[in-house]
Amino acid sequence: MSKEKDKTCSSYTRRELFGTTAKLATLAGVSGATAAGGLAGLIGGSMLSPGAAQAAEHKSAEVKPGELDDYYGFWSGGQSGELRIMGVPSMRELMRVPVFNRCSATGWGQTNESRKIMRDGMLPETKKFLDSRGGVWLNGDVHHPHMSFTDGTYDGRYIFMNDKANTRVARVRCDVMKVDKMIEIPNTADIHGLRPQKYPRTGYVFANGEHRIPIPNDGTNLNDPTKYHALFTAIDGDKMKVVWQVMVDGNLDNCDADYQGLYAIATCYNSEGGTNLAEMTANAFDWVVVFDLKAIEDGVKKGDFKKIKGVPILDGRKGSRYTRYIPIPNNPHGCNTAPDGKYVVISDKLSPTVSVLDVRKFPDLFADKIKPRDCVVAEPQVGLGPLHTSFDGKGNAFTTLFLDSQITKWNIEKAVRAYKGEKVDPIIEKLDVNYQPGHNHTSMGETKEADGQWLVTLNKFSKDRFIDAGPLKPENDQLIDITGSKMKIVHDGPTFAEPHDCIIVRTDIVNPIDIWDRKDPMWEDARKMAAKDGVVLEEAANVIRDGNKVRVYMTSQAPEYSLEKFTVKQGNEVTVTITNIDDISDLTHGFTLADYGIAMEIGPQATSSVTFMADRPGVHWFYCQWFCHALHLEMRGRMLVKPA
Amino acid sequence: MSKEKDKTCSSYTRRELFGTTAKLATLAGVSGATAAGGLAGLIGGSMLSPGAAQAAEHKSAEVKPGELDDYYGFWSGGQSGELRIMGVPSMRELMRVPVFNRCSATGWGQTNESRKIMRDGMLPETKKFLDSRGGVWLNGDVHHPHMSFTDGTYDGRYIFMNDKANTRVARVRCDVMKVDKMIEIPNTADIHGLRPQKYPRTGYVFANGEHRIPIPNDGTNLNDPTKYHALFTAIDGDKMKVVWQVMVDGNLDNCDADYQGLYAIATCYNSEGGTNLAEMTANAFDWVVVFDLKAIEDGVKKGDFKKIKGVPILDGRKGSRYTRYIPIPNNPHGCNTAPDGKYVVISDKLSPTVSVLDVRKFPDLFADKIKPRDCVVAEPQVGLGPLHTSFDGKGNAFTTLFLDSQITKWNIEKAVRAYKGEKVDPIIEKLDVNYQPGHNHTSMGETKEADGQWLVTLNKFSKDRFIDAGPLKPENDQLIDITGSKMKIVHDGPTFAEPHDCIIVRTDIVNPIDIWDRKDPMWEDARKMAAKDGVVLEEAANVIRDGNKVRVYMTSQAPEYSLEKFTVKQGNEVTVTITNIDDISDLTHGFTLADYGIAMEIGPQATSSVTFMADRPGVHWFYCQWFCHALHLEMRGRMLVKPA
Repeated sequence: MSKEKDKTCSSYTRRELFGTTAKLATLAGVSGATAAGGLAGLIGGSMLSPGAAQAAEHKSAEVKPGELDDYYGFWSGGQSGELRIMGVPSMRELMRVPVFNRCSATGWGQTNESRKIMRDGMLPETKKFLDSRGGVWLNGDVHHPHMSFTDGTYDGRYIFMNDKANTRVARVRCDVMKVDKMIEIPNTADIHGLRPQKYPRTGYVFANGEHRIPIPNDGTNLNDPTKYHALFTAIDGDKMKVVWQVMVDGNLDNCDADYQGLYAIATCYNSEGGTNLAEMTANAFDWVVVFDLKAIEDGVKKGDFKKIKGVPILDGRKGSRYTRYIPIPNNPHGCNTAPDGKYVVISDKLSPTVSVLDVRKFPDLFADKIKPRDCVVAEPQVGLGPLHTSFDGKGNAFTTLFLDSQITKWNIEKAVRAYKGEKVDPIIEKLDVNYQPGHNHTSMGETKEADGQWLVTLNKFSKDRFIDAGPLKPENDQLIDITGSKMKIVHDGPTFAEPHDCIIVRTDIVNPIDIWDRKDPMWEDARKMAAKDGVVLEEAANVIRDGNKVRVYMTSQAPEYSLEKFTVKQGNEVTVTITNIDDISDLTHGFTLADYGIAMEIGPQATSSVTFMADRPGVHWFYCQWFCHALHLEMRGRMLVKPA
Repeated sequence: MSKEKDKTCSSYTRRELFGTTAKLATLAGVSGATAAGGLAGLIGGSMLSPGAAQAAEHKSAEVKPGELDDYYGFWSGGQSGELRIMGVPSMRELMRVPVFNRCSATGWGQTNESRKIMRDGMLPETKKFLDSRGGVWLNGDVHHPHMSFTDGTYDGRYIFMNDKANTRVARVRCDVMKVDKMIEIPNTADIHGLRPQKYPRTGYVFANGEHRIPIPNDGTNLNDPTKYHALFTAIDGDKMKVVWQVMVDGNLDNCDADYQGLYAIATCYNSEGGTNLAEMTANAFDWVVVFDLKAIEDGVKKGDFKKIKGVPILDGRKGSRYTRYIPIPNNPHGCNTAPDGKYVVISDKLSPTVSVLDVRKFPDLFADKIKPRDCVVAEPQVGLGPLHTSFDGKGNAFTTLFLDSQITKWNIEKAVRAYKGEKVDPIIEKLDVNYQPGHNHTSMGETKEADGQWLVTLNKFSKDRFIDAGPLKPENDQLIDITGSKMKIVHDGPTFAEPHDCIIVRTDIVNPIDIWDRKDPMWEDARKMAAKDGVVLEEAANVIRDGNKVRVYMTSQAPEYSLEKFTVKQGNEVTVTITNIDDISDLTHGFTLADYGIAMEIGPQATSSVTFMADRPGVHWFYCQWFCHALHLEMRGRMLVKPA
């Protein structure tokens, strides 16, 4: 690394980046001087991206009535707690899948089936904590959604996603587009980065505990941050069980896996071990941690761990055989493996650069034949506030610039050659986006099948791009055509509550079913309960009284439930189990019990159940809330609650 | 009314409409024979709507990057419990406003401000019922959203909406696009139809209690449906207080107001007083109830009511001076006043007709100078399963046909002339929609400023219109250009969980603010509490200890909170109050307290607060969850909870 590069990285600390426009302009000037020959090269970016007179060669985002999208988008719903299924390029939201939230429509968080999924993977102390708060979390943050891989590309089985807010990882089955597993990650706090193993298959799901906490976090140590730790977690994606954890130095941020099945890579900021902003941004360099999966598996086999809450925790802090620490400038953030299988691009956030690591050097790094910084093979100056990078499968990378509100398109091999001293400019184009982009993603871009068709940039601010919706503005997910010689924004997509990240998947890979299989494990408990009660779910019209418990079994078939009424006593614990015997595509029924706060979805051929205390006397109507028939409004019945 | 019409209405009962295609075809044949000269006239509808070769004259739904929509759409979020703000014609969702749901992102249902709004208008028995269930409802159904009126058109003040699931009415302030009032409607169950008074202003908000229940519903009468009742409720839209209720015969369905400020009109089905499907659909005729507002106000003044739960209930059953009952065929559903101020169109649901009422005849009706059926001035045969009607302001009406999956465009005056016996066909065009439409709405169509630009049809089934999202399919909101000589579908809009109804409002009418006013009443309680504690909210960095209670006051300014940590004891009741002192558009902050299930939005210049029990010891990080700055990730602090 040249002296001059050192200076660029270290002489502008992230503290200088706070707030003032003057300072930003100065920094832009300096980095611009190095990369593009002057201040104008970066400010506004319009020099590199004229934007005009490039219409004809570009594709449209419009998918006309009756036409179908080419890609599924799986979108984080951010703090909404949902996974969103989108169509690309239309950018239409096709479905919301409730995950970490409480869903008013489907009853997610209320049905017995969803509560079992939410509670089964919960730590005992969390169960206890929540028992006085309704039993399940009501909020969460779907942060990073990623599909399972086989042989370096998506395989259409699952979408995995993490909850930073309440330290969980969940899985959505892509056949039915519902969550089937949700686990709490022990010994760590606030899962941030999440990526599945790409090769040979998923396999592991890697999850970064971001915030450093005492282990155990029971209050015995409160205010000695030198004894706080962050853990890197590997989950078995098939069983949804934590397999091992590795303790690291610093705060774990984002992560990715290689295409060889040998290493995982995570960005770390706060090498300082600080607890406030000034401390966390003091050092000019933080690091990337590289995890040697074979060495870790060997360490687990040999018992080189402490087992805490059932999980082997290996010590991967500096000096460990399980990890290597590569110094990277300035609170590195994004971590993206290129589809060529060779490079990992680290976005340096508070430095105007990205750092390119060569994964082929990692064996030598772990063998101590080379120094950590020798893994850095390029460090192109992309602009201010680089956060994340995507790929087109043709050797180019697209990096979001939060501060510049731009996407920089650059060539990886040219950046490597430039780093070696060759006079070549890796920067291809800069495009203004609206505004402040975070994650971006290209179609199939995190797989070996990256196809270079579409780029989506998830912008944190929308400001003036839409008619005004009040003080809370939408984010703006912009769709960019990257097939032409110039990038072209073809759609502005407003979204709610920070859609943090997304992936874009070819439609042929995803094959959902239309109607539930009656043998589906989702309602296994209801199946067992009915068998015990001698009830056939598909023909049910039964009220079973069992002490204080009443179990009501019905079927639904448009426009009628099999029971027009049932009677219980005030104080009874009532379980209503409904089987939708309609077997027609799109014929979902619902069950809303009015003035009891109960509503649930029952898909075609599915069974759903809900348990509640009948502690309100009187006549309470239940009705179907999923429009099913011309006589939908008349599809209802009564729960009669006798006063105690 | 001719003999033949009588036959058409009564000889095909709704029971014959159940299920079989053969019967549907028969019915279509008969009504088609009357209206359009043969079976082909209705089946498929393609004779009237060729669909091809009409492209050029039509507008596009595409709103290009950087361009703005022409209309606000206010969309019911259905069972999601949200109000959705859309852009029209782009059909992009600009914002979700949590109303009856628990929102994971904004903390609606969790913040002290939202809980106060949700609980203040709750009946005491409901408060008691919910006290053991977290204190607020977690679900609800935003069914019918409608804007406040002044002088027959939208005035941009409020959106009112009802919750059928838990019998509530809420109001969204259009300056900040947040709910400020929510009330439970006493003495009735499951509010369905809702419409604001159009003239002279709103004024009243009319709300239909759909399901008949005993009054009081305390369990003393459970199974004698002859003593069940439905009530029509008038709410003061300014104060959000129930003013009066009127008891009616039948189940109240939809409603509307006139343009004269004299009458309200409601459709009623179940004239039979039945409790199951067969009973509820037995009669060939049900009715519309017309309410005489001046007579009712006079009755209230004279004390002609029973006061139950603080509300005067007037007896408006058959024979009352407050109401008139107009016989209408077959479970009438939609109720829409035309912008000409003269006509109200009733959709007859199980008859292939709509019934047109002339409001100018209502004075004579109440004076008993004419018979109820004399108010019916047209009854065009529109097709199978008519549900709702919209208007273009040019004398034409658009009726959704659930069974035919079509929109019928017809001319009102021609229908009136045809009813008088003139040989004129009021049917202009039929358009296939995809599929099974419920509500529809034209731009400004429920005001005297109906402008005939756009028609949206909310279709209950989407089937094959989108790439497959699993067994639960989206609905399909289709946008139709109605400016040309033929209707043209220009956009398919997938939506989640039955977006039940919508309105389309010119952008000049809606003027939200960008940044909260520090004097906003939303956080009045926090303001008072801070004053008592001697804390200045805008400069706060205080921890007030008051016995077992701890009140933590902070400010947020990107990228820092004013407190980097605070310490409490396990078992303390903690209130965190945060004031966002950033005054930049779109600069929303958040407060997520990890592994405590807490997340809330704090808009620019707003104050938000949350109260919780600190019953989990250890180090718990709080952080900003609304991306605010390049150092957003570092915007955080610690709550240290000392073990008890």
